[in-house]
Amino acid sequence: MQAAVVDPFAVMNAIGLVAFALVGSTKAIREEFDLFGIAVVGLVTAFAGGATRDVLVNRIPLALQSPIEIALGLAGVGLAVAASVVLESADDHPVTLFSDAVGLAAFTTTGAIVATEASVSGFGIVAIGTINAVGGGALADILLDRSPFILLEDFYASCTVLGGATYWLAVSLGSSGSVAAAICAAVTVGTRIAAVAYGWTVPTAQVLRTSP
Amino acid sequence: MQAAVVDPFAVMNAIGLVAFALVGSTKAIREEFDLFGIAVVGLVTAFAGGATRDVLVNRIPLALQSPIEIALGLAGVGLAVAASVVLESADDHPVTLFSDAVGLAAFTTTGAIVATEASVSGFGIVAIGTINAVGGGALADILLDRSPFILLEDFYASCTVLGGATYWLAVSLGSSGSVAAAICAAVTVGTRIAAVAYGWTVPTAQVLRTSP
Amino acid sequence: MQAAVVDPFAVMNAIGLVAFALVGSTKAIREEFDLFGIAVVGLVTAFAGGATRDVLVNRIPLALQSPIEIALGLAGVGLAVAASVVLESADDHPVTLFSDAVGLAAFTTTGAIVATEASVSGFGIVAIGTINAVGGGALADILLDRSPFILLEDFYASCTVLGGATYWLAVSLGSSGSVAAAICAAVTVGTRIAAVAYGWTVPTAQVLRTSP
Repeated sequence: MQAAVVDPFAVMNAIGLVAFALVGSTKAIREEFDLFGIAVVGLVTAFAGGATRDVLVNRIPLALQSPIEIALGLAGVGLAVAASVVLESADDHPVTLFSDAVGLAAFTTTGAIVATEASVSGFGIVAIGTINAVGGGALADILLDRSPFILLEDFYASCTVLGGATYWLAVSLGSSGSVAAAICAAVTVGTRIAAVAYGWTVPTAQVLRTSP
Repeated sequence: MQAAVVDPFAVMNAIGLVAFALVGSTKAIREEFDLFGIAVVGLVTAFAGGATRDVLVNRIPLALQSPIEIALGLAGVGLAVAASVVLESADDHPVTLFSDAVGLAAFTTTGAIVATEASVSGFGIVAIGTINAVGGGALADILLDRSPFILLEDFYASCTVLGGATYWLAVSLGSSGSVAAAICAAVTVGTRIAAVAYGWTVPTAQVLRTSP
Repeated sequence: MQAAVVDPFAVMNAIGLVAFALVGSTKAIREEFDLFGIAVVGLVTAFAGGATRDVLVNRIPLALQSPIEIALGLAGVGLAVAASVVLESADDHPVTLFSDAVGLAAFTTTGAIVATEASVSGFGIVAIGTINAVGGGALADILLDRSPFILLEDFYASCTVLGGATYWLAVSLGSSGSVAAAICAAVTVGTRIAAVAYGWTVPTAQVLRTSP
């Protein structure tokens, strides 16, 4: 594996792009969009979070500069179309849910890495990690004219907040970027999978209220 | 009061952040969101307008750099949760409507200040003041999957346009930044409260039409 | 015509601003918005794509700096209000459909020109051309709380992708900017008008599927 020579940003970025393009395209296939719409929703899901991240830290989005990024996104779109041919309902298949959790962890981590390089505050690291991880899915939902599932699904965005906070804590305590990245990814994917498996929920304000 | 030593940007920014986080969280509480969703909608309402403003003038959003900003936003979220415990329908309580008018005036003014520093045109001052003031609420409505109320509510965004135009006029006529800020805030909050109190409306194109 | 002295960016930008402000305002009139809402939807349709383009390539949006841009946008809004007085259903009148196709071609081209100046990849040129051309209409639809028609309408965004790809190809093959701009505009407007006239569609993934 030679972890020392591998750039954690490049690896996680590639994983996240393929996974999120796959997840986004699968949703568009369920909605019976045409192939152009499938590609657009997949690429938006894969790239909108990272583009927002780059705009927030004042740089031209990586996706507009590197042809490799687009090739990875299109690979995810192609996988989704292939999966829809062989699977009955690809959009809630365990493979899709797992891809989504892995993409979430990968993008939380790459967002935290970029934010740390841009010297923002601890909150900034958590916010950019979260925007990077959930921004693409949220924009895809807005394009599909539905309330972003990140606001309805308990413990989805919460996992990225936990992951980003862990990254910031690890870096603050003096850990190296690679170690912080590994911990962040593990916390995000671990809490997300546990949340799905055990059906974790967050209380509403109504629960706190002293109702009659 | 020592108006001369107080930075109008810092004061109005703090007022706007607390007021808009309170208003946004109150809406999310009405929709029975969980505590995470309440915090997200409150922080989006408080920060999205300012983040858009900063991106438009090419700087990293203040909210990602300053921990004080986040503390103020979270204070507004906390106030909303506390209010929902003691009030029956906090989201249309006069205190919430008044907070919203005050936040609108504060953010129109801070937007106009930042725009003036960035040397944009007169229209740019009005546009950035408006985006700063209504952008957070509009994005919160989009996240809640409803048409932004700013387009449906007569004399909401109109008040910020009037306020921003007043700021630009005052600065063009040679007034100091502090005086322009005070006039802008007074015009915005005054027209907004008057619009609510007297039910002002703007005519539609159908009214102009020579219908049979 | 003196094509050599005319700046293709300035001409196409002016055409696109008037055409898209007209198209956007016409939609808002159909929705019975008030005059303020009509102006907002028209200006959003005209300016949001270009503002996103400018933010992506790290510059302050032109619309915030140049008063001429706003005058052109307001001219389009005024034309829409005037048209609504004399026409029964201005929003699907052939003049509106033609304005839309022309605006689409003009903005695809200006987006490709800005992208080329910013030295992004070939995909970046196509992406920024597309965002410039369809971003305003998509945001207007989101504000009107409906799924962006660009995802539902076959061969709308596809035309801008074809146009942007043609621009990139022409520039790559050594053509001058003016020639590439003319070809890009012609391909975009031509495919769009042909798509409307002949009812072209793109297949869905369901068509590819080996269904029983």
